[in-house]
Amino acid sequence: MSVLPRALSDLIYSLEGLPGVGPRTAERYAYFLVQHDKSISKKLEKSLSNIHDSIKLCPITFALIDSNMDSSPLYSDSNRDKRVIAVVASPFDILAIERIGSYQGTYHVLGGLVSPIDGIGPEQLHIAELLRRIKDDSVLEIILATNASVEGETTALYINQALNDTGVSVTRLARGLPIGVDLEYADQITLGRAMDGRTAL
Amino acid sequence: MSVLPRALSDLIYSLEGLPGVGPRTAERYAYFLVQHDKSISKKLEKSLSNIHDSIKLCPITFALIDSNMDSSPLYSDSNRDKRVIAVVASPFDILAIERIGSYQGTYHVLGGLVSPIDGIGPEQLHIAELLRRIKDDSVLEIILATNASVEGETTALYINQALNDTGVSVTRLARGLPIGVDLEYADQITLGRAMDGRTAL
Repeated sequence: MSVLPRALSDLIYSLEGLPGVGPRTAERYAYFLVQHDKSISKKLEKSLSNIHDSIKLCPITFALIDSNMDSSPLYSDSNRDKRVIAVVASPFDILAIERIGSYQGTYHVLGGLVSPIDGIGPEQLHIAELLRRIKDDSVLEIILATNASVEGETTALYINQALNDTGVSVTRLARGLPIGVDLEYADQITLGRAMDGRTAL
Repeated sequence: MSVLPRALSDLIYSLEGLPGVGPRTAERYAYFLVQHDKSISKKLEKSLSNIHDSIKLCPITFALIDSNMDSSPLYSDSNRDKRVIAVVASPFDILAIERIGSYQGTYHVLGGLVSPIDGIGPEQLHIAELLRRIKDDSVLEIILATNASVEGETTALYINQALNDTGVSVTRLARGLPIGVDLEYADQITLGRAMDGRTAL
């Protein structure tokens, strides 16, 4: 005998598929959806119904775009400087950089980071396409905007080597103290990087 | 110009409707659903599609049941002792008590707790229906299983008064030290309750 109605336990089970959602959180979401106005669950249902069909990857930058578009608006926009490319691991990293509000270059999504443990080698990332863009758009600067993790640094080093012959300028996001963090609470690696990368006032 | 495809920002917006889900968590869920196998989002979509139509409240216990059922299986089951009723605030509290694995009585869902701030008075809870059940099923014991919060205690006190004339035995879940918690870390109210409710060895 099941304690919950079938439809409800189905929903809880489906919600548990989301990242970081355990049984308790899934129950909380499900209960909320059942208790509240039908419109909330209907809206969510509708948004889910067409995400896979109406989204595709931009063939040039590999950002997520509407399936009726030819390329990412962040690339095709004439105000964007195609000669500067920020290289990121995932399409959502673009969102983080766009929030700064001042970056005027374009993006290139690698589709992951080099990670031998997960069986991801450089050949699975969109690096060949990056090299093609460098030629096609006469790129001047590549900004490596990968995470400050082992995988992020490895990928950055690999791309830097791969771009050696192109003569393009390769830069990397600064590592250092985050704004608002006290010196005494910073970890030693971050502080070490901040010391190495100190700038003249 | 939007940074994200329309379908994706729609999905993020819908996910933000879930309790405790902010923009970042919604982005994380949405990105996961887009990146992974279509089957995960399809399953979630399907589970959402019929929750409101295939779930209803049991007319006797107010637990959530399949819409083709007459009453909650936790009530209609002949192994369940109808003369003992655990009174809970929400249908999900039933799940918590069922997890103990040894409770053999039935349940009664109040549908909330007395909370003047939220404008919820006792007349909005299923208390009249509880009184009817006490008569109909010759109930012997009412276990007040409401939260140890101000609203939970207020509701318990109110129901205790309302049941004064019925002659039914009214009990309440024990308050005390949770298992695995050190005495020195227990808050003073919990410790005070544990002292008041001390039992003979």
